[in-house]
Amino acid sequence: MVAIDINCDMGESFGNYTMGRDEEVMPYITSANVAGGFHAGDPHVMRETITLAEEHDVGVGIHPGLPDMMGFGRRQMDATPQEVRDYVVYQLGALIGFAEWAGVEVQHVKPHGAMYSMLSGSDDHARAVMDAILEVDPELVYLATDLNIYEIAEEYDELDAVFEGYVDLDYRSDHTLIVEKEVSEVDPGLAADRAVSIATRGEVEAADGTMIDIPADSLCIHGDNPNSVEVLETIHERFEEEGIELKRLDEL
Amino acid sequence: MVAIDINCDMGESFGNYTMGRDEEVMPYITSANVAGGFHAGDPHVMRETITLAEEHDVGVGIHPGLPDMMGFGRRQMDATPQEVRDYVVYQLGALIGFAEWAGVEVQHVKPHGAMYSMLSGSDDHARAVMDAILEVDPELVYLATDLNIYEIAEEYDELDAVFEGYVDLDYRSDHTLIVEKEVSEVDPGLAADRAVSIATRGEVEAADGTMIDIPADSLCIHGDNPNSVEVLETIHERFEEEGIELKRLDEL
Amino acid sequence: MVAIDINCDMGESFGNYTMGRDEEVMPYITSANVAGGFHAGDPHVMRETITLAEEHDVGVGIHPGLPDMMGFGRRQMDATPQEVRDYVVYQLGALIGFAEWAGVEVQHVKPHGAMYSMLSGSDDHARAVMDAILEVDPELVYLATDLNIYEIAEEYDELDAVFEGYVDLDYRSDHTLIVEKEVSEVDPGLAADRAVSIATRGEVEAADGTMIDIPADSLCIHGDNPNSVEVLETIHERFEEEGIELKRLDEL
Amino acid sequence: MVAIDINCDMGESFGNYTMGRDEEVMPYITSANVAGGFHAGDPHVMRETITLAEEHDVGVGIHPGLPDMMGFGRRQMDATPQEVRDYVVYQLGALIGFAEWAGVEVQHVKPHGAMYSMLSGSDDHARAVMDAILEVDPELVYLATDLNIYEIAEEYDELDAVFEGYVDLDYRSDHTLIVEKEVSEVDPGLAADRAVSIATRGEVEAADGTMIDIPADSLCIHGDNPNSVEVLETIHERFEEEGIELKRLDEL
Repeated sequence: MVAIDINCDMGESFGNYTMGRDEEVMPYITSANVAGGFHAGDPHVMRETITLAEEHDVGVGIHPGLPDMMGFGRRQMDATPQEVRDYVVYQLGALIGFAEWAGVEVQHVKPHGAMYSMLSGSDDHARAVMDAILEVDPELVYLATDLNIYEIAEEYDELDAVFEGYVDLDYRSDHTLIVEKEVSEVDPGLAADRAVSIATRGEVEAADGTMIDIPADSLCIHGDNPNSVEVLETIHERFEEEGIELKRLDEL
Repeated sequence: MVAIDINCDMGESFGNYTMGRDEEVMPYITSANVAGGFHAGDPHVMRETITLAEEHDVGVGIHPGLPDMMGFGRRQMDATPQEVRDYVVYQLGALIGFAEWAGVEVQHVKPHGAMYSMLSGSDDHARAVMDAILEVDPELVYLATDLNIYEIAEEYDELDAVFEGYVDLDYRSDHTLIVEKEVSEVDPGLAADRAVSIATRGEVEAADGTMIDIPADSLCIHGDNPNSVEVLETIHERFEEEGIELKRLDEL
Repeated sequence: MVAIDINCDMGESFGNYTMGRDEEVMPYITSANVAGGFHAGDPHVMRETITLAEEHDVGVGIHPGLPDMMGFGRRQMDATPQEVRDYVVYQLGALIGFAEWAGVEVQHVKPHGAMYSMLSGSDDHARAVMDAILEVDPELVYLATDLNIYEIAEEYDELDAVFEGYVDLDYRSDHTLIVEKEVSEVDPGLAADRAVSIATRGEVEAADGTMIDIPADSLCIHGDNPNSVEVLETIHERFEEEGIELKRLDEL
Repeated sequence: MVAIDINCDMGESFGNYTMGRDEEVMPYITSANVAGGFHAGDPHVMRETITLAEEHDVGVGIHPGLPDMMGFGRRQMDATPQEVRDYVVYQLGALIGFAEWAGVEVQHVKPHGAMYSMLSGSDDHARAVMDAILEVDPELVYLATDLNIYEIAEEYDELDAVFEGYVDLDYRSDHTLIVEKEVSEVDPGLAADRAVSIATRGEVEAADGTMIDIPADSLCIHGDNPNSVEVLETIHERFEEEGIELKRLDEL
């Protein structure tokens, strides 16, 4: 039976600021990328998020960001590989603290925003994150989007890297994603078609009509789309029809 | 043979800002209280500090602070017990991340500055810190100064609370410490006398000449005194003469 | 003709985090309390807010907070009067920078949250804020809620202190406000009654039915009430019926 | 009579962290670049620095940085021109607040670290800073190092841009500076030779022996060199011998 994971960014609220619809989205996903307090999130939000994830048996991972709350971690900065490594260990450790409390294991690591982009542009930074993961816990799954990063990850014998695909964004034929400035509604049927296509055939149709390989074991859904819950519901329905099972990263 | 621990705050540098003389002081202590990034310290400094501690076989503990870098965590703030608990878990977890990397176990927890003072004034806050410790790792030692906190700690069967004494500050006869605004030189001989007195007899002479009980298993030394290294050297010499052994908290 | 000002907190968004409904509320108010970047707001939000205020000919004032973004400036902290004074001058100056750009004059100062409460509890802190105002610009209006603060302000010959009243919160008979944990809907008719009562007779009915003096020249409206726009509309209608004019603080 | 200004970064301490030797250096300079609280400095330090500057009749300018305290504003980040403009207006305004208190006029603007470097690489960012200056106060002097920036500044009729030279760093023949990772001692005689050469002939010898044009009206001295005071003393002596006058930017 075909199985795949759905991951989504969670815990991006901060102090009195609310972001995302974590409570509505959590029931539909299998892996939560929890903000680590650098670009978003705070200790209290982390505890709440891990509690919510546990209620829905959702695997938790750290979603480490650059120390840029004002820019929501979306601005690249000249942080060295060592600095990025330190930021990942710190935020990952912080999540481990709450996971110990909740009695769960941290499942994965998925860098956020500009940190994520920096890894595509610099192999040294990509290796820094992988080193950080192995330093702390070799059991952790590394969620990679960029095929290049995925290939670097393959160099590491110990590292369990999982490739993820997107269904609420368009791909270019070179496998890069077309990211719009404004978050907008997604066609739930189209997203579900893509989800099924990736889950069953490991491919998806790019914006120019060509089919491209997306050998993904996880699907990333943006929780901040205005109709993300509807999109998730539609994917769930289609998966049921097609006999595709949803499984957490650590159960795949 | 009598044995005691010496703890000192470490890792309080931040970015380009240097604080303390960690490299000079580390060889003389057995437990390092590592700043967790809220009142001082940052991920890079934490990694460096844990490396330095390991070189000298010094036990590492988290020194969690309130989120007030501008006030160095020394200003009390109306944080709820739950908020304090979250801050402790977060910073403790972060240190665990680096400890995993270094292959060492985090040994203890000692709240910093205003967080430390808040615990003396509020049993709920004191319990919040103890709960945080037990949530994350019941093996951790809780370093307590205030006798009241120490008594609350006794309520927790699982919790390993260790009382600490001061040798570079004067005590009042009610066991509270006389903290001067300005850090000043300490008489090394006097500090060593106190260290021996606490280590061997569990008592020390207060400022008004009365002897008070200080049932301490650890001595706290302030690394930012201008002559802290000299003070530590003198204590080491006296301990050797008196046959007092220095042991990390987790080896006592 | 009776005239009164309506002030509201504005510009509390931060980076990617949105707070409040500034665009909807601004058309109904005459004075905007702009967050200064310590408890909320950021440089970009300040520029946007001052632009929006100018479009509606709304007077702008600084709404300085304690440096506690995680607690939204609502947690008292042991900041000294001098520290509070420095925080006010800094944030007030920052707003002056944007006001110079917009070609407007900063009109007033109204401390936020815990800073505001600290002034009621400590005359020294209240004076620190007044000193800060006079240091920077004696033309500024100081918005005071607490009668005690208002009396201290009277000591300063130069200082233009204006007392404000609340219409979306209940008063106790001792003039203190009953602040609920959760922000909830406000009865627009009741709020408008209070607004008219304060504007025309300088008094309002407290929760226990007694009439208390509220000699206010400004009404504070909470923009984060779920129906704040409806409340404001109702007040505007009633003011028109009663012949009460809305005027900015600097036009009163 | 030949006259030139000496500028130095000041007010880079933060909370309990001390940086630089402001009290020792201030007597020898004519213009102080005051950190604005984003990369270094805080409201209290700003007030202290402006007080110290006033005592020595030193002109004060804002030294705005990127919001990256952990990286001391030395890491380039993908901030847009508009964001940089907002950061400059905010920090400049904050300094104006303290200048109003001190009864002095803010004299100049000199971007710090990575913000400074970004301006060399992007004309749009350079113009953003110049726009910010003109928005707030067209009387302000803009301190430019890069000849390219200086040329852009010439496009602005209103803007008073002053070119600065370095005497404690080596130039390459293309006018760029050779910045070493570690700050090291500077040969006071060599620095004074360069200072005289720039002040009197507007040129300096590059590392490869060629003479290059440095049409500077201000000399930048690094206050964090271990012997910066000695360097400044030597420059003062040589200036006296050579009949070169030291003048603040606003008196040139």
